[in-house]
Amino acid sequence: MSETTTRRAVKASSAQHDIRIAYIGGGSRVWARALFKDLALCRKLTGRIALYDIDLSAARRNVGVAKEIFSHPQAQTSFKVSAVSSVDKALKGADFVVMSILPGPMQMFANDLDIPAKYGIFQAVGDTTGPGGISRALRCVPDYFAYGQQIMEHCPDAWVINYTNPMTLCTAALYAASPEIKAFGCCHEVFGTQARLAGLVEQYLGQRKPPRHEIEVDVSGVNHFTFVTEAHWQGVDLFPLIARHINKRGFFADRTADAVKQKEEGHWFRSQGLIAYDFFRRFGALGAAGDRHLAEFVPWYLTSEENLHRWGAILTPSSYRLGSWKEKDAAVAATIKATKAAKKSKKRAAAGLKLKRSGEEGLQMMLALLGDKPLDTNVNIPNRGQAPDLPLGAVVETNAAFRLDRVTPLVANPMPPLVTGLVNRVIDVQQATLEAAILRDRDQAFAALLSDPLVNIPTDKAWAMFNELLKANKAALKGWKI
Amino acid sequence: MSETTTRRAVKASSAQHDIRIAYIGGGSRVWARALFKDLALCRKLTGRIALYDIDLSAARRNVGVAKEIFSHPQAQTSFKVSAVSSVDKALKGADFVVMSILPGPMQMFANDLDIPAKYGIFQAVGDTTGPGGISRALRCVPDYFAYGQQIMEHCPDAWVINYTNPMTLCTAALYAASPEIKAFGCCHEVFGTQARLAGLVEQYLGQRKPPRHEIEVDVSGVNHFTFVTEAHWQGVDLFPLIARHINKRGFFADRTADAVKQKEEGHWFRSQGLIAYDFFRRFGALGAAGDRHLAEFVPWYLTSEENLHRWGAILTPSSYRLGSWKEKDAAVAATIKATKAAKKSKKRAAAGLKLKRSGEEGLQMMLALLGDKPLDTNVNIPNRGQAPDLPLGAVVETNAAFRLDRVTPLVANPMPPLVTGLVNRVIDVQQATLEAAILRDRDQAFAALLSDPLVNIPTDKAWAMFNELLKANKAALKGWKI
Amino acid sequence: MSETTTRRAVKASSAQHDIRIAYIGGGSRVWARALFKDLALCRKLTGRIALYDIDLSAARRNVGVAKEIFSHPQAQTSFKVSAVSSVDKALKGADFVVMSILPGPMQMFANDLDIPAKYGIFQAVGDTTGPGGISRALRCVPDYFAYGQQIMEHCPDAWVINYTNPMTLCTAALYAASPEIKAFGCCHEVFGTQARLAGLVEQYLGQRKPPRHEIEVDVSGVNHFTFVTEAHWQGVDLFPLIARHINKRGFFADRTADAVKQKEEGHWFRSQGLIAYDFFRRFGALGAAGDRHLAEFVPWYLTSEENLHRWGAILTPSSYRLGSWKEKDAAVAATIKATKAAKKSKKRAAAGLKLKRSGEEGLQMMLALLGDKPLDTNVNIPNRGQAPDLPLGAVVETNAAFRLDRVTPLVANPMPPLVTGLVNRVIDVQQATLEAAILRDRDQAFAALLSDPLVNIPTDKAWAMFNELLKANKAALKGWKI
Amino acid sequence: MSETTTRRAVKASSAQHDIRIAYIGGGSRVWARALFKDLALCRKLTGRIALYDIDLSAARRNVGVAKEIFSHPQAQTSFKVSAVSSVDKALKGADFVVMSILPGPMQMFANDLDIPAKYGIFQAVGDTTGPGGISRALRCVPDYFAYGQQIMEHCPDAWVINYTNPMTLCTAALYAASPEIKAFGCCHEVFGTQARLAGLVEQYLGQRKPPRHEIEVDVSGVNHFTFVTEAHWQGVDLFPLIARHINKRGFFADRTADAVKQKEEGHWFRSQGLIAYDFFRRFGALGAAGDRHLAEFVPWYLTSEENLHRWGAILTPSSYRLGSWKEKDAAVAATIKATKAAKKSKKRAAAGLKLKRSGEEGLQMMLALLGDKPLDTNVNIPNRGQAPDLPLGAVVETNAAFRLDRVTPLVANPMPPLVTGLVNRVIDVQQATLEAAILRDRDQAFAALLSDPLVNIPTDKAWAMFNELLKANKAALKGWKI
Repeated sequence: MSETTTRRAVKASSAQHDIRIAYIGGGSRVWARALFKDLALCRKLTGRIALYDIDLSAARRNVGVAKEIFSHPQAQTSFKVSAVSSVDKALKGADFVVMSILPGPMQMFANDLDIPAKYGIFQAVGDTTGPGGISRALRCVPDYFAYGQQIMEHCPDAWVINYTNPMTLCTAALYAASPEIKAFGCCHEVFGTQARLAGLVEQYLGQRKPPRHEIEVDVSGVNHFTFVTEAHWQGVDLFPLIARHINKRGFFADRTADAVKQKEEGHWFRSQGLIAYDFFRRFGALGAAGDRHLAEFVPWYLTSEENLHRWGAILTPSSYRLGSWKEKDAAVAATIKATKAAKKSKKRAAAGLKLKRSGEEGLQMMLALLGDKPLDTNVNIPNRGQAPDLPLGAVVETNAAFRLDRVTPLVANPMPPLVTGLVNRVIDVQQATLEAAILRDRDQAFAALLSDPLVNIPTDKAWAMFNELLKANKAALKGWKI
Repeated sequence: MSETTTRRAVKASSAQHDIRIAYIGGGSRVWARALFKDLALCRKLTGRIALYDIDLSAARRNVGVAKEIFSHPQAQTSFKVSAVSSVDKALKGADFVVMSILPGPMQMFANDLDIPAKYGIFQAVGDTTGPGGISRALRCVPDYFAYGQQIMEHCPDAWVINYTNPMTLCTAALYAASPEIKAFGCCHEVFGTQARLAGLVEQYLGQRKPPRHEIEVDVSGVNHFTFVTEAHWQGVDLFPLIARHINKRGFFADRTADAVKQKEEGHWFRSQGLIAYDFFRRFGALGAAGDRHLAEFVPWYLTSEENLHRWGAILTPSSYRLGSWKEKDAAVAATIKATKAAKKSKKRAAAGLKLKRSGEEGLQMMLALLGDKPLDTNVNIPNRGQAPDLPLGAVVETNAAFRLDRVTPLVANPMPPLVTGLVNRVIDVQQATLEAAILRDRDQAFAALLSDPLVNIPTDKAWAMFNELLKANKAALKGWKI
Repeated sequence: MSETTTRRAVKASSAQHDIRIAYIGGGSRVWARALFKDLALCRKLTGRIALYDIDLSAARRNVGVAKEIFSHPQAQTSFKVSAVSSVDKALKGADFVVMSILPGPMQMFANDLDIPAKYGIFQAVGDTTGPGGISRALRCVPDYFAYGQQIMEHCPDAWVINYTNPMTLCTAALYAASPEIKAFGCCHEVFGTQARLAGLVEQYLGQRKPPRHEIEVDVSGVNHFTFVTEAHWQGVDLFPLIARHINKRGFFADRTADAVKQKEEGHWFRSQGLIAYDFFRRFGALGAAGDRHLAEFVPWYLTSEENLHRWGAILTPSSYRLGSWKEKDAAVAATIKATKAAKKSKKRAAAGLKLKRSGEEGLQMMLALLGDKPLDTNVNIPNRGQAPDLPLGAVVETNAAFRLDRVTPLVANPMPPLVTGLVNRVIDVQQATLEAAILRDRDQAFAALLSDPLVNIPTDKAWAMFNELLKANKAALKGWKI
Repeated sequence: MSETTTRRAVKASSAQHDIRIAYIGGGSRVWARALFKDLALCRKLTGRIALYDIDLSAARRNVGVAKEIFSHPQAQTSFKVSAVSSVDKALKGADFVVMSILPGPMQMFANDLDIPAKYGIFQAVGDTTGPGGISRALRCVPDYFAYGQQIMEHCPDAWVINYTNPMTLCTAALYAASPEIKAFGCCHEVFGTQARLAGLVEQYLGQRKPPRHEIEVDVSGVNHFTFVTEAHWQGVDLFPLIARHINKRGFFADRTADAVKQKEEGHWFRSQGLIAYDFFRRFGALGAAGDRHLAEFVPWYLTSEENLHRWGAILTPSSYRLGSWKEKDAAVAATIKATKAAKKSKKRAAAGLKLKRSGEEGLQMMLALLGDKPLDTNVNIPNRGQAPDLPLGAVVETNAAFRLDRVTPLVANPMPPLVTGLVNRVIDVQQATLEAAILRDRDQAFAALLSDPLVNIPTDKAWAMFNELLKANKAALKGWKI
């Protein structure tokens, strides 16, 4: 067990909460580090963080990163961060459990994209839905199910915050382990939609662009396939603005040129929202996730790479996934090195570590759950009535009120019926996948895959693709006969 | 049309909202005057109030009262208050419609109590449920249905705040007129429960008694028959405290002596909460209204006046209803007179008008709807999913989030199944009564009455009682053949 | 193990089914003997019957009775009947399991009537609902739950026919043991309603009275609280006839005189159907059980013995229950003796055994399930959609199609909404009672009792009554702390 | 008005029902003539048939055909058949209304196939679902809605039997006109599945092939997309047989050769059931319609003509549709001519009219509704609970009991959840199409089309295709702005 103690003395004020965080996937290159920074910039919290990762060395590496972050001159607080060798050790006594794992080695993510592509099924992201998302779910659902059981054993009162995709199925697996678990899934995709609407406020109302959280949206659906059914800014209905915006001549014109440029430049995550607006035009509800996600839930935009380009969006290639993985580590190592060097030389190098808020809401959620500032935001939890047009019990994404030790869903508007139909279809596939993954049921897993909106190929070919995916996942599919 | 202009000049600040309020039942002795005072003490609002009442002279009398209130030295703002001769005049241009009417003359309220009593059915209040409540509903539902239509014609964007009982059926009648209406019903009964729980915090946690709004309750049911399924204060679960409290030796002992004393002293509205706690003991959910209300929804506490006394609660006699009606007017007249005299003599007489907040939340709701401070509180609106164990569409009481031009329900916990059963039974009777009242369907009205939990008498006698009630209501039952 | 072989040689025709019947409650004085006679008169069946009873001597007595029946000159077939000492022995290899037990000794049935009566709660029958029915359910539900498990172990493909009351809860307990069980509950109460309607055909249509099965009824509800929502004879709608019938002057006049006479004469099971018609008058659906049963599900007819008399119905006294029990045995013994004597003397004595069809449908159901004549009739099984206005999963009574190895429910009309409300209330109590009985949960059992429509007494008194009942049942309540 | 009287004297026996049939689409080349023959061969019925058709000459032609049929030597009864010039005349006094129309001229049917094909969407049939089915629905739903209203005006007690496709939407349009209408839709596709299973009985049980009605199936879904969830023959479970059958080596081998041959020979309606079995293999429920229909409801089999051929099924080309239309008329004319000639020459020519039962169940349904032989069979009516896993109110296909003046649905098994999902998706599209067709809502019609399982093309192209279809339908789309 490696451990770090921050140097700066922290004076515990009565307002400062002393908490324990268990981090499952504590070797995480992105989310864990973002959390450290967010925590470092918040004087209201202090305590301990236990990092667990199946790759203990990655967790240890993050202990080093954390050390630098909490000792940074801008840091407002410090946490004791340690890497632990078992989940149980991490969980004991935890107030919060943060989960962000990589389901299987990065090569498997690459397979999730490349194998379906051979069969003519292209995915822009591939981590949520479609053959890629289902393949990924088969790998991680059993782990999440087991983590859920361990959480209920060691820290049943802890709040569990999940960042891993497939978000819906990971969260659902926790609730499958115990309906009593206090878990929720967080996603920032809706924030992007709010930001886009804030742009319309600026453009059409002659106002300074408001911060995204001022855009009040009623949102419903499942993660990455959510819809805004109502949007206001300071009481102004934004739907007429959207209508005006998209009715402009040429608005829906072909954006292949943009996409091609983007691809050349490697801006893999950019999209223009044209698909989100196409949903608005065709179904009356605004897609509330990035176009690359939205496109994966329906059979219309990913019929070919060219078709996706037409909407100004691009595929993230598996090569990028494999490459970025290594680059991230290298970049962080370089930053840490530069930071240490700078400290030694008593000056801050340009290349050194910078503290900056991540824009994620995990920290605000924690604060609200600790009784600090109330927060109303979108979240993924089982449907208790908040999405009255979706099945009870399914993990859905709507707004909820975060208060002291409580997350209470706000009732969402029903979506337009055909959109509800599209979402229900996705939920059907998710429920079947969840069961198949827990029971290791090959036939049901295939039936689920076949029912996925992206699988519009002959059943024979789908069966071949499915088995190829299973084989590629073999090492991660414990308990399966492959 | 009589009109008043307040003397004090009001400087409209940018933060001050200029609103129009239509008050239906503007001759109201209690609610209208409470609202005037609450408004007078709130510097954030100004504007106009149009009072409509079928008794125009009562509305005019309130114009006089308002004049004194808004010219009171403590007043922070002023409103132009006028009495108008038609609903339409009141509604045109309204931002808010406040409704508090008396369904039929006070003598009919007396009949609602006295006629059932002849048949052995006693009601502690008689304005919500039971034969009295149904009789009252038959009188006022058609009016509310018509008001709903007029509101949709003249001010469809206005928020409609209802205070009239039967709360559920009046609110439901507005929605029967149009599902698009922006109406809700307000009730303070839950506040009393919060205050009682605040007392437990003081008693058992050694804290100063917290203000009632610090007690966070999850509430569900129908108005006056609501249940707390979860209660916290600063994260402390209050249910174990309740259990401890009621398990005290003698807690449920006979309280007849208290009741008799209360009756002698004429403290008609007091109750000790013993029935609310009896629900907790027997069903696991705390009754969240006064005992006199709760007792009317089940057949166990009102089998006789003595039985009610045993729980430390008493019947409000019809004689009191008739008497208080006149007394209230007299008291206000005296106050106004004293106030005017005092003003003349440049000093404030002891007997003069005092400005004091009512404790009602109508004003805070208005402010929240105007985009001011957000408010989460209990409210009566149609079930869109917030009470997943009750029928969709039925007017239920749960918490909701009041925000700028929006009321979004928060999803309530399900109640214990047998309590859900008790509430569903009440909802069945309410739905049937609503239809019967609108359609003037005598048979269905009787079938609804027969299904009421208080009607445990032979069907022949119930039929006789029903017809006696109809006859007593004849003047108020337009369109009925009686 | 005692066994009997019938003397007459039975020529097995290809059309004759050779079946094994397990009879749980095989000492049954009424149902078992009726079944023997029905079987004896049906040449299509032969085989073996194993009688199990906790009172082995009673089962043995029935072996003797069976011997006489199957050797009767009118008998068309024979069965080998034996008494077995364990349930398992009875069940092994069974094609049908017939269940008709007495829940607890007869004295407990007497208590079920007498204890509530002390608290002012009168029951006409006391075996289905109300305090008596709940008390009885607490005794027998755990046994049925265990029988269900044993059936699934020993003869999972057998059809289980239940005759025991409380019908709904006994059947529900079997399904609680396993949702895969092929069980149903039979009741003849609807037959009486059909017969009554056949009388109207005769009276108003100038036809010979048709047999009851020609009256086609759409029926829904729970056993003994069922409602006819539509009735036809040869395409003629009978509802206008009912309306005509009950609108006759004096139809609903006081029938106390009849009741008093009936009581004096000891015609305990007779009733005039006036309560069934009162439901029709008040709610628009015809009660489809005897008045003595219907009266127990609502609070209007059993407020006193006198009130019940007013409707021409009477209470069955506990003394009769105790007495008849002994008389039945004596009567059968005498018959058997006379039969034997007659056989010896080669002539049939007037007092000897007579074979006569029982009018029950158990045999026809068996035949239909064996692929013989199809049968559409009313039956008690879990709601799979057949009663769309009642909760899924609850045991309901509607029509169903009996075919070869299948019972498929026919979708019933929805009942009038207020009747649905009355039935739902009963279902709520039943579900809570079922759980309480299986879990031995005293608090929930009391909460269920309190929610019963007949319990309109103060909660303190109800609690006392409940505990008195528990004590009286002590010997039968295994696993309870009393 | 042209009229025919049959020559043979019919002796009205007491058992013979004298009925009036209104035939909407009375010029029908296939269904009307089949009905005449079925009627002619049934001695239990006589009466009048009024033929209405928007093509009066076609109706008149059928009067001539009917004349020959009912005067045929084998005819057992006769009907007076006339052609009438308005729907109202046909409907007045009708006991039965039979509906089989052609929605738009045959050229429009051809367009329904050819236009989507240009966009890469192939349909094997094109009359039920997919772009072709939706296009057809837009044409005929308004007519059916209007017919429904006229039926309720002129003969509200008549039973309405629909044969027109799209079956579900035509039937739904009648119920949209009035929920009180007594309408149902008939389809013989399930019969084919029964026949196929009868073949398995022969093949595997060593029995003579039983008639198809002996195969008892539990069926659920929507017309042409129905599933067998359970199948028995004389109590033998046929599902293990199906499993055995399809597990044979090579069973699912490529059947392109067969398909190509079939296509060359013009056997347009043949299929081998391989797709039905593929559903069984992948989802656990047997498709219960012809493969050409089943393939149209999912995106897997019609990705290309070649892919369909692989399953041994072929596309029906629009050229065949156009050609057969004319051929049918010619063939009938020839037959009638030959028949007349034969009659004249007192001998029956080989080419003359032959009376033969159609295999349709319309006649048996009529007989059952008239109180004759009860019939349990599959039928299309709104879901009242019979398909508990599908939305209430949607027109579904399950079994139902036909009895005297009643059709009572039998509760179907739930389908496997993923199959329910596939069916729900179709229902969503149908509901949206129904509304769009009645309201002439172009946007909703397109949104429905886009949601159809066959529409897996870019949204731009789908929009172009949709508008091309609208234009091609212009003459038939009254009230649309095109």
